[in-house]
Amino acid sequence: MSYPVRSYAAHSPTGRLGLFEFERRSARDTDVVIEIDYCGVCHSDLHNVRNDWGNAEYPMVPGHEIIGRVIATGSAVSRFKAGDRVGVGCMVDSCQHCASCGKGWEQYCENGASYTYNGIDKVDGSRTHGGYCEKIVVSQDFVLKVPETLDPAAAAPLLCAGITTWSPLRHWKVGPGSRVAIVGLGGLGHMGLKLAKALGAEVTLLSRSPGKEADARRLGADHIVISTDEAQMAAVAGRFDLIIDTVPYEHDVNPYVPTLAVGGTLVMVGYLGPLDAFNTAPLVFARKALAGSLIGGIAETQEMLDFCGEHGITSEVEVIRIQDINEAYERLLKADVKYRFVIDMASLKD
Amino acid sequence: MSYPVRSYAAHSPTGRLGLFEFERRSARDTDVVIEIDYCGVCHSDLHNVRNDWGNAEYPMVPGHEIIGRVIATGSAVSRFKAGDRVGVGCMVDSCQHCASCGKGWEQYCENGASYTYNGIDKVDGSRTHGGYCEKIVVSQDFVLKVPETLDPAAAAPLLCAGITTWSPLRHWKVGPGSRVAIVGLGGLGHMGLKLAKALGAEVTLLSRSPGKEADARRLGADHIVISTDEAQMAAVAGRFDLIIDTVPYEHDVNPYVPTLAVGGTLVMVGYLGPLDAFNTAPLVFARKALAGSLIGGIAETQEMLDFCGEHGITSEVEVIRIQDINEAYERLLKADVKYRFVIDMASLKD
Repeated sequence: MSYPVRSYAAHSPTGRLGLFEFERRSARDTDVVIEIDYCGVCHSDLHNVRNDWGNAEYPMVPGHEIIGRVIATGSAVSRFKAGDRVGVGCMVDSCQHCASCGKGWEQYCENGASYTYNGIDKVDGSRTHGGYCEKIVVSQDFVLKVPETLDPAAAAPLLCAGITTWSPLRHWKVGPGSRVAIVGLGGLGHMGLKLAKALGAEVTLLSRSPGKEADARRLGADHIVISTDEAQMAAVAGRFDLIIDTVPYEHDVNPYVPTLAVGGTLVMVGYLGPLDAFNTAPLVFARKALAGSLIGGIAETQEMLDFCGEHGITSEVEVIRIQDINEAYERLLKADVKYRFVIDMASLKD
Repeated sequence: MSYPVRSYAAHSPTGRLGLFEFERRSARDTDVVIEIDYCGVCHSDLHNVRNDWGNAEYPMVPGHEIIGRVIATGSAVSRFKAGDRVGVGCMVDSCQHCASCGKGWEQYCENGASYTYNGIDKVDGSRTHGGYCEKIVVSQDFVLKVPETLDPAAAAPLLCAGITTWSPLRHWKVGPGSRVAIVGLGGLGHMGLKLAKALGAEVTLLSRSPGKEADARRLGADHIVISTDEAQMAAVAGRFDLIIDTVPYEHDVNPYVPTLAVGGTLVMVGYLGPLDAFNTAPLVFARKALAGSLIGGIAETQEMLDFCGEHGITSEVEVIRIQDINEAYERLLKADVKYRFVIDMASLKD
C-alpha cells in the first residue's frame, strides 16, 4: 500500500514552492510510516531549492527537521509502534558497513549517506523527498524517538540545527570549565547557545551587530562580544576552547582565530566554500585548528534529543502555514526570524 | 666570569653572515655553559636573517639546532655536569607559570617563550644569540640530554626539524595502524618520514616532483604519491589520518584535504601566512581539520631524543665549515641539500 501525499515542492531554481502531489512508497519490512506534524525550515532548504550547490533535481520537496507520529510499521520493525512521537533529520539511509558508519558517524558515510531530500534511495534508486509533506516513509534505523514532554513544533529544529551544534560540542568534549563561543545568532547559533550552556560551558556570543544582548543572555550566553569591535575582541584573546561558526555565507574568519585558546578549534558548521586569505600563522603559533562539522550521527542525535528532553530544551520558533513558505524564505534571506520557521503541516489540508 | 666568544652573525637584512665577537654572560645559578660542537641550519634561519618576518634585530647570531658539551654549571644546577652531551633547541626560556607551560607546552607559552636567537632574555632584557657560535649559556630547564650513541653532527637537526615533526605525530596519536603523509622532502620532511615510520605508521611521501622515490623509501616511506598527478591523488582519497605539511612557502593546500580520512588533520609546520581560497567544504563534509604546530615542548623534545637514541635515528646531514655558511644559504634557497646543513663549529677556530 503506497501513500498518496500532498506536499510543497520547488519545480525550478527560482526556488518558489507550490503544491505537489506524489506517492510515497509502501513500507518495506524495516520502514516506519510517519504522519508529519511539523517541519522546520533550514537555511540549507533555501540553498537547495535555488540550486546554490549545483546538484538540485526538480521537483524537490525540501525539509529535514521532521516531527510526526508513527502510523504504520513494516513487519521487521521492533523499535517503533503506531502512535510514537518521532523525528527524522537530514539523513534517511547510509551504507551501514563502512568505517564511519561503524563508528556511528553515518553523516560521514564513506559511500555517501542518503539525504532526506534531493538524495537517492539506496534500495530503488528513486529521488528522496523531504518533510514539507503529509507523510514520510523511513528506515527505522534513521528514525529518532522524540520525548513526549517537548513541544513538537519547537522540537523540529533539533533534528538539524540542534544536532549540528550538539555534535561539535560533544566531539570537542565541551563541559563544565569549557569556554565556548558561538558566531552568529540564527537558527544554528541560538541552539548552540542553549546546548553549550546546558552542557555547563561558559558561553559567549560573537556577533557582528549590537542589539542582541538581551536575547542572547536569555538563550544562554554569559557574555556578548561585538566581533567588529577590535577592543572587545582583543579583550577575549586566547579565551575560547571551541568556537562554533554558524554563519552560512562567506565571511572573514581570521579575526576569530586569535580569540581561541592554545589548542583551540574553530569549527565551521554553516559555510561551505573558499575562505579569502586564511592565515595559517596563528594556527602554527598555538596549535589551533580550523575544522568543519556536519550534522551528527544517529546515536548522537538520539543522545541530543534525550538530553533536550531532560533539560526541557527546544528551539525558538515561529510557526507558519505551508502556504506562507515563499514569504518565509524571503524573510530568511533577511535573517528576519527568531529563530527558526517551523511549518504546521496540518495547513496542507486547508 | 663571562665568555668572550666568536660567532657568525648577520649584520643587516642582506642576510650575509660574517665573524662577530661578543661576550656570553656568566652562568647564573641555574645555567649551563655549553661548548658548541655542531649547529644545524634551519630554513627559518634564512627567514630570520633576511628579516622576512619583520622582527629582525642586528647583529643576529642564528642557530637553534645546537649540540655541545657542558663545560661549566651554575651552583644550583643538579641535572647536568661538565662533559655531558647536550642540546639546545629553539627556546631558552618561558614564563613557567602559565597554563601552557604547566602542560609542558613551553613553545606556546602565553607570555611568550624566549627564542634562542633574535629573542629577549627574560632576566636582563638583552638580545639572545644562537648557535653559530663557540659557546652558549642556557637555563638548565631548556637544556636537553642527547644520547651519547647518536652521531652529534647528525643529531643537531633533531632539536628543531626532529621535534617539529615529532610533536604533531605524538599530539595526533600516531602509532601502528595510523596512515601518515608527509608533504615535502626537506629538512623537516625527511625527519617526518623517519619518525612516523619508527612510530609504526604506514607512511606516504606526497611530493610535487618525481625522482625522490629511492631516497624517500630509504628514509621510511612506504609509498610515494606525486601530488601534481590527479590520478595518483584520487587513488589515495580518504586515506590519511594525519598529513604533516612541511613546505616553507605559500602553496595550495586544497588538493591535500581530500586525501584525509574522515576526522583527519592536515597540520602545517612550515608555512606561516595566508592561504589563497582555502575551501571549507571538505572540512565540513568529513569533520576534517587544518591545524598548525610549532616545534615542541621541552619534555616532549627529551622524549623524542630518547626515542631517537633507542631507534638510532638521526638526520641526514651535510657538514659544512662556518666559513661556507653564505654559500649554504644560497643552496638552501634552491633546496640543494640532502637534507640538512650542519655547521662544524670547530671551524670557527680556523
